[in-house]
Amino acid sequence: MSKGEQILTAAIRHLNTDPTASMGRIAEAAGVSRATLHRYYATREELLRALGEQAMDRWEQSQRSAGIEAAAASGDPAVLEEALHALMRAFTVDADEHGFALTDHFVNHLPELVRRGEELEEREIVFYAACQRAGVLRADLPARWVSNTVYGLMVTVRDSLRNGDVARRDIERLMITTFLAGTADRPGETPGERR
Amino acid sequence: MSKGEQILTAAIRHLNTDPTASMGRIAEAAGVSRATLHRYYATREELLRALGEQAMDRWEQSQRSAGIEAAAASGDPAVLEEALHALMRAFTVDADEHGFALTDHFVNHLPELVRRGEELEEREIVFYAACQRAGVLRADLPARWVSNTVYGLMVTVRDSLRNGDVARRDIERLMITTFLAGTADRPGETPGERR
Repeated sequence: MSKGEQILTAAIRHLNTDPTASMGRIAEAAGVSRATLHRYYATREELLRALGEQAMDRWEQSQRSAGIEAAAASGDPAVLEEALHALMRAFTVDADEHGFALTDHFVNHLPELVRRGEELEEREIVFYAACQRAGVLRADLPARWVSNTVYGLMVTVRDSLRNGDVARRDIERLMITTFLAGTADRPGETPGERR
Repeated sequence: MSKGEQILTAAIRHLNTDPTASMGRIAEAAGVSRATLHRYYATREELLRALGEQAMDRWEQSQRSAGIEAAAASGDPAVLEEALHALMRAFTVDADEHGFALTDHFVNHLPELVRRGEELEEREIVFYAACQRAGVLRADLPARWVSNTVYGLMVTVRDSLRNGDVARRDIERLMITTFLAGTADRPGETPGERR
């Protein structure tokens, strides 16, 4: 990892716990002097922009490694299901960074990052809609709702890790189970019916 | 609604779309002069504190109207399930306000609001754990994860309404279905098994 990447990683970790941290605090968390931090990122705005760009790069990379475009084009349920699992796994790994960049209002207000986020989101919605047509995802939920659900669950993942509520090794299973199967013990049955 | 409540409601709506809005912008959105806004809330900090307190009041009220403490004490699956649905309905109604207050880092850093939020969260975790013991919610998810899932889905609700992705009249069904039953067409089956 280059010095610049090291600083970004430490900055994300720290901003996830303390989102309003000053440049001084971020430098401290990254184990560099304020002068060094400023050599890489002259202003807090520049640092946040770099974090936002990195998060978008990861998001795009996750979509690509999961192969969602080819899967959507195939229409094959088994291929789509595999891509869906791969996408959720990739998102879960990146949850800290992903979560930070997407809920930071400042980053959200950088027009070119907003535009890039919208493009990535549209690509993903096409994929979720293909999953619905192939019977992998329920068809009675709007594809945009599915996409927003994934985002909401990324906030869940980020907060659960941040608060130490769940073990990091469990997070992938928790995310995928909750997303696909929900939290009810036996969905569709009332407790009365099975007692 | 009193003038103060009117201002708070307009402020929440506006801050949900534009979280960094100035006092001038908020006054404009509320249809009052800057002077009037300042008479009610002398600083932006005071306004955010009032929003945070209102969100906590609503959260507590939602727990109370759903009867989660009595339901948890009863241990009765039917009572627990009804309280769970009532809680999700109440949260969905308040999603705009609830969502704003809980993701605004500023409000999150007011110690007495953080403390109150933690108390409400603990009460809810006791309730989710009771739902798990009674077979209403799956027992293989930590109760804190369930609580964080509800929070994440509130972000989903807020964003879906903010972006105009789903109709307001559908939001309760979407939220409860996704929370309890997930997004898979037939959870637990692979597409291959049913083709």
